[in-house]
Amino acid sequence: MMSSKIKPEGQTSKPVKKIKPTKESENLVRVVPLGGLEEVGRNMMYIEYRDEIVIIDMGFQFPEEETPGIDYIIPNIDSLIPKKQNIRAVVLTHAHFDHIGAIPYIIGKIGNPPIYTQKLTRAIIEKRQEEFVNVPKLNVKIVKGGDTVKIGNFLELEFFEVAHTVPDTTGVIVKTPVGNLVYFADFRLDYDEAGKPYNLDVVERIGKMGVHTFMCDSTNAEKPGASISERTVEKNLAELFEKIEGRIILATFSSMITRLGEIMHIAEKLGRKVAVNGRSMKNNIQIARNLGYIKVADDTIIPVEEIHKYRDRNIMILTTGAQGESNAGLMRIVSGEHRQIQIRPGDAMVFSSSVIPGNERSVQALKDNLARQGAQIFHTSVIDIHASGHATQEDIKTVVRTLKPEFFMPVHGHYYMRVVNCQNAIQAGVPKENVRVLDNGNVAVLGKKQFTITDETVPAHYVMIDGLGVGDVGEVVLRDRKMLAQEGMIVIIVTLDRKTGRVLKNPDIISRGFIYLKDNQELLKEVRTKIRNICSRVPKKQTMDADYLKSLMRDQVGQFLHTQTYRRPMVLPVVIEI
Amino acid sequence: MMSSKIKPEGQTSKPVKKIKPTKESENLVRVVPLGGLEEVGRNMMYIEYRDEIVIIDMGFQFPEEETPGIDYIIPNIDSLIPKKQNIRAVVLTHAHFDHIGAIPYIIGKIGNPPIYTQKLTRAIIEKRQEEFVNVPKLNVKIVKGGDTVKIGNFLELEFFEVAHTVPDTTGVIVKTPVGNLVYFADFRLDYDEAGKPYNLDVVERIGKMGVHTFMCDSTNAEKPGASISERTVEKNLAELFEKIEGRIILATFSSMITRLGEIMHIAEKLGRKVAVNGRSMKNNIQIARNLGYIKVADDTIIPVEEIHKYRDRNIMILTTGAQGESNAGLMRIVSGEHRQIQIRPGDAMVFSSSVIPGNERSVQALKDNLARQGAQIFHTSVIDIHASGHATQEDIKTVVRTLKPEFFMPVHGHYYMRVVNCQNAIQAGVPKENVRVLDNGNVAVLGKKQFTITDETVPAHYVMIDGLGVGDVGEVVLRDRKMLAQEGMIVIIVTLDRKTGRVLKNPDIISRGFIYLKDNQELLKEVRTKIRNICSRVPKKQTMDADYLKSLMRDQVGQFLHTQTYRRPMVLPVVIEI
Repeated sequence: MMSSKIKPEGQTSKPVKKIKPTKESENLVRVVPLGGLEEVGRNMMYIEYRDEIVIIDMGFQFPEEETPGIDYIIPNIDSLIPKKQNIRAVVLTHAHFDHIGAIPYIIGKIGNPPIYTQKLTRAIIEKRQEEFVNVPKLNVKIVKGGDTVKIGNFLELEFFEVAHTVPDTTGVIVKTPVGNLVYFADFRLDYDEAGKPYNLDVVERIGKMGVHTFMCDSTNAEKPGASISERTVEKNLAELFEKIEGRIILATFSSMITRLGEIMHIAEKLGRKVAVNGRSMKNNIQIARNLGYIKVADDTIIPVEEIHKYRDRNIMILTTGAQGESNAGLMRIVSGEHRQIQIRPGDAMVFSSSVIPGNERSVQALKDNLARQGAQIFHTSVIDIHASGHATQEDIKTVVRTLKPEFFMPVHGHYYMRVVNCQNAIQAGVPKENVRVLDNGNVAVLGKKQFTITDETVPAHYVMIDGLGVGDVGEVVLRDRKMLAQEGMIVIIVTLDRKTGRVLKNPDIISRGFIYLKDNQELLKEVRTKIRNICSRVPKKQTMDADYLKSLMRDQVGQFLHTQTYRRPMVLPVVIEI
Repeated sequence: MMSSKIKPEGQTSKPVKKIKPTKESENLVRVVPLGGLEEVGRNMMYIEYRDEIVIIDMGFQFPEEETPGIDYIIPNIDSLIPKKQNIRAVVLTHAHFDHIGAIPYIIGKIGNPPIYTQKLTRAIIEKRQEEFVNVPKLNVKIVKGGDTVKIGNFLELEFFEVAHTVPDTTGVIVKTPVGNLVYFADFRLDYDEAGKPYNLDVVERIGKMGVHTFMCDSTNAEKPGASISERTVEKNLAELFEKIEGRIILATFSSMITRLGEIMHIAEKLGRKVAVNGRSMKNNIQIARNLGYIKVADDTIIPVEEIHKYRDRNIMILTTGAQGESNAGLMRIVSGEHRQIQIRPGDAMVFSSSVIPGNERSVQALKDNLARQGAQIFHTSVIDIHASGHATQEDIKTVVRTLKPEFFMPVHGHYYMRVVNCQNAIQAGVPKENVRVLDNGNVAVLGKKQFTITDETVPAHYVMIDGLGVGDVGEVVLRDRKMLAQEGMIVIIVTLDRKTGRVLKNPDIISRGFIYLKDNQELLKEVRTKIRNICSRVPKKQTMDADYLKSLMRDQVGQFLHTQTYRRPMVLPVVIEI
């Protein structure tokens, strides 16, 4: 895989200007995306006017093939730390980890500023904060759609509800002296049975207030048409469930709380008890029930230990692990490691989620094993039992036409997805010269009827979390991990008499991930001879240069192994002088 | 990712029986798939009657996430080697690597039997054979659709043409004493403009001969509907090309020779010169032109060095690398490393291929960089400019209805894909009890009106190729590579006085892929103290047990590092006694 950081010189259609700190620049609003613009995930951005800063979201990104062994990638906050006293508010748009996951790693370092969000998001971030030590108690202020909050002399926030896959998803209007910046969070349009979008009046109202810039979700910008209605999904799920005689095992994301509520509701109507498998899903359902977002009778939910007490047709199991994650609930079931749940012929396995790019092979293995164990499988490509939470092309155009923004700034997604999203905006009436494609770390300055990407940048490179340390997995360590994974390594330990330069004992060799040494004694012997030859060529009784000797061994042994095996393991020579 | 090898005990609907070698069993045909049934790739199977064996295809599989550093995975031929004198024929259905790629690694080990295939396939395998040393000259016999060959007293082969993405794709009827086994290779139906499939009469003729078993491609078994006609693709490509003012850069698989021919033909009609980038594509086009499968004028093809001599609107560049492969043609262009070709605004980048599962992220990075450099991108999800080479559900049903086979055996694809393919067959009239889902290494015996999967198996596990050695990358080496990739490793070298057990010098520590040692001197110091403590606790002057000392260090240093960093590097202690 290649990096997506190449920046051509002749990049067009971007008015780039150096802005000197002058009187004039004091009246400009600065927009600084720290993450989410060159990937899906790690969403974080700040908006700054004089000494007032508002942060929108604080998410993490899941690791990639390119970052082996890494737990999460979080936004870089180097540019925020020196002015943390200016941070007046953090807006969290919704309770998904790509928007809230980095909070425990970041919030303490920027002075634990007040967080504005809705009830469900608060419950989830507070619960998660308990899993960390040495993190501050969060300072959360509950808001809801329609609320406005003045966070300084100049900046004001107004919140509005948007449709997504988790309740309490919140868009925000940042009202600034240069105009209203509208951030729609992750959103889609939800349609009624007649195909009319719900709540378009909210968008209309915002449009009438005047929109300087619309910051728009690009996740599904390449997908033509309008979103599938959640009503369709609900109806199809209900019809599917009705036909199933055996147990239903349904896998989806634990974060799709709206969908989970619908599914449990249908199960209850059909007389099925619901058992929940997977810690994150249990937690989320508990939280959503406490807050009244999922309304089912107490006796509808049973512990997995009790599923054997009911007939198959009265059981539904909800589980995590729809992406084939190796540590999630469904994998434990399928690999036979689950104490209470085993797949058996007659089970209906329903996937109510899409496959995230990169997980195709894991999901394929999951389906193979489910099929081998006799489960019948239902998934989205067969029947519409999943709707994405992200606006498709027609959704986006409808919103753009209604908002009538002056400028369009696509957020959330890789460069190409955002370029395609600009086409959506242009088709919906935004002038071609008014779309702005930023990168992470770009600084844009906004004036009245002005949106300029400057040539100033702030640090926005990956901060990688692996174990306890934050950001201490550097490029070198990652590069080594990748090299080790490709051809393994060989350590050569030579013990020399410091005075004579004589090799004191047979060189020790250890190797991992290269070849199986026990089966390759002959090669091993040749390597030892090679090393002895190298050492013996060093003139006796002259000062030993261990570094020089090491580099000789690295080159010559490396070269020798390559001719013999066509592999290039990492060669690590150690010289011990006694 | 999980292995897909789990075998439940209660596997249903499979008549499994132990067949003892008796008179009766002498009259049965054995069908043994060695690869291709639990993956996409590595296709190879043999059919055996008494002392006559015919092998169908000899492909390799590309490496997976689970097999880091591996070049290819090839079929296991352990069960064939003892009876190589019985191998009468190898049928190669078409010139794609998942059907021919393993030839150089295998053919010499099984006595270089005669290969039956068509012209283009011969040219490609002979060309590839030149790249290897110590491989025999292939013994290829050219056949074409309609030919029959008697390969022994009992077995006869009849060949027939099928539509795929490469010319000269051949299906084969293996005529045995128990009936005709029909293997369709990779195939699809190709439709005329009225939606009528071409060449269905060939299928009708085979059906009339009577079909014992139909072995059917499952690659697209989950895809509803009929295949897109290649006429539609051609028409759409022509319309697209006509509208483009700038250069056209088109990426596809070098193995899609039929498509490449069409594209070059359109380019010629539009007055564009064609420059080819990428060695495999150049080779294939050269071979196909020599054999008359691609018919364009000599001066239509120009070297890439000469593209600057023509106006943009007169240039088309064909390139490999549509999957974002790091060593292919398109990647060199996009990363700025290509001497003659750079992307510039106005270029039209056309992807006439689908994304192979697992390559989504590389392709995303590719598109991002193309978009950054100003190219306009056209791909299949926007316009039908690619048709898969594999039969979709309606194609499969049409063929099944026409062949009217007694038994249906899905091949090519993961277990679940093949289970779904059985549904296609059942819907097209095959009795439910007559579908047979085998695994690699299963042995099936076929009699008249009989198809039994026995409980005999032959070795079919992965044989991995990495560098020079064949099959010498074992599970241990792979497991180590994966562990090294996750958390790296730390080597601890302790030098002891053999007589006193005293530590002679400060322990040496080297580490890769774990933490950056230079930035973690404190931790390093603590590890050294820890090691000294461990060594000092060993009672003096008693016989040193180096293995015991090593296991103490492995456990205690491992534990210590985990508490300090939450990471678990591989700890490799070395004890040097002087």
